Amino acid sequence: MDYQAHLDTALQRLHDEGRYRTFIDIERKRGAFPHATWVKSDGTEQPVTVWCGNDYLGMGQHPVVLSAMHEAIDATGAGSGGTRNISGTTVYHKALEAELSDLHGKEAALLFTSAYIANDATLSTLPKLFPGLIVYSDELNHASMIEGIRRNGGAKRIFKHNDVDDLRAKLAADDPAAPKLIAFESVYSMDGDFGPIEAICDLADEFGALTYLDEVHAVGMYGPRGGGVAERDRLMHRIDIINGTLGKAFGVHGGYIAASAKMCDAIRSYAPGFIFTTSLPPAVAAGAAASVRHLKTDQELRERHQTQAKILKTRLRALGLPFIDHGSHIVPVIVGDPVHTKLISDMLLDQHGIYVQPINYPTVPRGTERLRFTPSPVHGPDEMNRLVDALDDLWSHCALNRAELSA
Amino acid sequence: MDYQAHLDTALQRLHDEGRYRTFIDIERKRGAFPHATWVKSDGTEQPVTVWCGNDYLGMGQHPVVLSAMHEAIDATGAGSGGTRNISGTTVYHKALEAELSDLHGKEAALLFTSAYIANDATLSTLPKLFPGLIVYSDELNHASMIEGIRRNGGAKRIFKHNDVDDLRAKLAADDPAAPKLIAFESVYSMDGDFGPIEAICDLADEFGALTYLDEVHAVGMYGPRGGGVAERDRLMHRIDIINGTLGKAFGVHGGYIAASAKMCDAIRSYAPGFIFTTSLPPAVAAGAAASVRHLKTDQELRERHQTQAKILKTRLRALGLPFIDHGSHIVPVIVGDPVHTKLISDMLLDQHGIYVQPINYPTVPRGTERLRFTPSPVHGPDEMNRLVDALDDLWSHCALNRAELSA
Repeated sequence: MDYQAHLDTALQRLHDEGRYRTFIDIERKRGAFPHATWVKSDGTEQPVTVWCGNDYLGMGQHPVVLSAMHEAIDATGAGSGGTRNISGTTVYHKALEAELSDLHGKEAALLFTSAYIANDATLSTLPKLFPGLIVYSDELNHASMIEGIRRNGGAKRIFKHNDVDDLRAKLAADDPAAPKLIAFESVYSMDGDFGPIEAICDLADEFGALTYLDEVHAVGMYGPRGGGVAERDRLMHRIDIINGTLGKAFGVHGGYIAASAKMCDAIRSYAPGFIFTTSLPPAVAAGAAASVRHLKTDQELRERHQTQAKILKTRLRALGLPFIDHGSHIVPVIVGDPVHTKLISDMLLDQHGIYVQPINYPTVPRGTERLRFTPSPVHGPDEMNRLVDALDDLWSHCALNRAELSA
Repeated sequence: MDYQAHLDTALQRLHDEGRYRTFIDIERKRGAFPHATWVKSDGTEQPVTVWCGNDYLGMGQHPVVLSAMHEAIDATGAGSGGTRNISGTTVYHKALEAELSDLHGKEAALLFTSAYIANDATLSTLPKLFPGLIVYSDELNHASMIEGIRRNGGAKRIFKHNDVDDLRAKLAADDPAAPKLIAFESVYSMDGDFGPIEAICDLADEFGALTYLDEVHAVGMYGPRGGGVAERDRLMHRIDIINGTLGKAFGVHGGYIAASAKMCDAIRSYAPGFIFTTSLPPAVAAGAAASVRHLKTDQELRERHQTQAKILKTRLRALGLPFIDHGSHIVPVIVGDPVHTKLISDMLLDQHGIYVQPINYPTVPRGTERLRFTPSPVHGPDEMNRLVDALDDLWSHCALNRAELSA
């Protein structure tokens, strides 16, 4: 058996398709976000501006977050030292879970080492709790939800993206007595479009289904306290399980679900991905709790974030650049070819010091390869000018299409 | 559909079997490990000594680790801000991967957010790289390995624990041309016994199989540089993929694999659990790198660790307590009943301020419920005396068996 040849084949396939990923090695500068240093593979350095981060609000450098982390390290050390059950539950984990259950108006919250594992572990455990469970999953759900739904081979129905008619037809076609769960997102991160939360909740009521909402690209950023789109739309009480992350707008690391006390207790007790893993470092939990607490009141930061996205879209529209606009904070500019996307990304980085990663299949469908910009409150007018000018130059230089998607 | 009733049923089952888990809320005191504060559910506090942590060497409070974390927070902020591909690769992640590949004598290493996800993501991705792969898995492998092997429904053979004859029979029964992988551990954490690494490598050579070794309960603690049992036994070069954790002996958080450059490149490129998740916080990577680097030379700490385990076992043997001894650093005392185990654990905590979590099914087989002690260099003679005296008292008080398993 020639294992090397198999690896060569697998890697060559990515090169052939122009979607082999090269990680860009950067170091963000605390106090100077979005500025960072790019360390090239030859060891030389170049200053860059990060335009593709998911620290949407710049909380990763907020003094309340950093102070909380420093204090926890001084008080209690580095790692937690164990799983949640075996010496790894601390006052920091409990305090963070309390912040999160309060944020979402739920009885309880349950921390995971990431939102990926929160989705995977929770969705793969629910069929153990509700035998015969049928999961209805939006076709554009995140990889972590897909992995969790597929894991144990339970019944699943994939409905067309945001298509409540298709969802209704699929719900109606199944046994009315079967336990059901509808899994979807509030903000789909690659197009920046919103899920039809209220319509899906109505269907859930009609067909007796549970609702599972992934708010990872919304928590901290939407709703008067940062509870997400469901909070903004006053629908949180209609969602049975909310999934969120501490690694994007909250600026730190980790993930969670918020739900009823019984639901969290059952997931806590039956999910291998929760039980058999070392809990988050106390300092990470402390930083995240400080961030969640802070964003419950900093509405002004949320507003500046939305304003930044509006400004960038207005300026791209004036240039006729093909971007997608669903009214969220995410600004995807479509190139539509993996090789071209990589080329433009490289030119932005090399020639303009602008770092935006090419997004290729399987993260987005083939033919929709894109540059995904995430303007934030830390991007000032100068950074915005430089980005817009660079894109204008490159679009002319490369004779790329304009306006096709920006109408 | 009465979802509440299903949750009640699932939770009641755990209560009925005496294996409902109650998390103990503790805060370890930096500089005073293994001492900690137990915060009870009524809000009152009691000092305790932790005897069940997996921070085996006390590195979670080592100044080089804490300094590295503080410095990284000051330099670069809290979270990484993205996945490894999208703005979340930093100099800290690269430096840690370099430390780890050096530690294991491999061309490359790949960080994951936990060793759980490293196992799950890697083992579930290998069948994509080697179509038709058959995985031979020790029956006592950790839950994360089992989850990874099961995930995509590939071919698997479960061999009897540490039984090379059974493994040979299973290898010989399969198509000689099929790609094969043998997955096992170097230290099985619940009994503290060692895997037969050399014999398994011999079989792998004979049958043309890859080897996958989980060293999470060995890295940092065994081998002249802390590379694990495979380093101690000079077998690292015969292992294709080594899995390790940064959250136990290294005292911080996260997991990894070390392997050939091509293998890491392929896993990096194809594993959803690597691709679609926010990378570790830079401060966590910095602290872990400092810990790995330090333990490459601190042989004296490793020796003190082993000495502590030997002292505890010698004293338990003198009392005739039923513990398992396979010569490792883990000291499991068998009670054999979930209710009794919980009772003894509660009495140790309440009456003696000694915290050791009861270990129940599914972490260990039913009928082998136990208290699992992890003596470390930070447990001094006074702590050891108090533990041994308390166990002696309780064993007499509860009229528990002695000596059955300690021969």
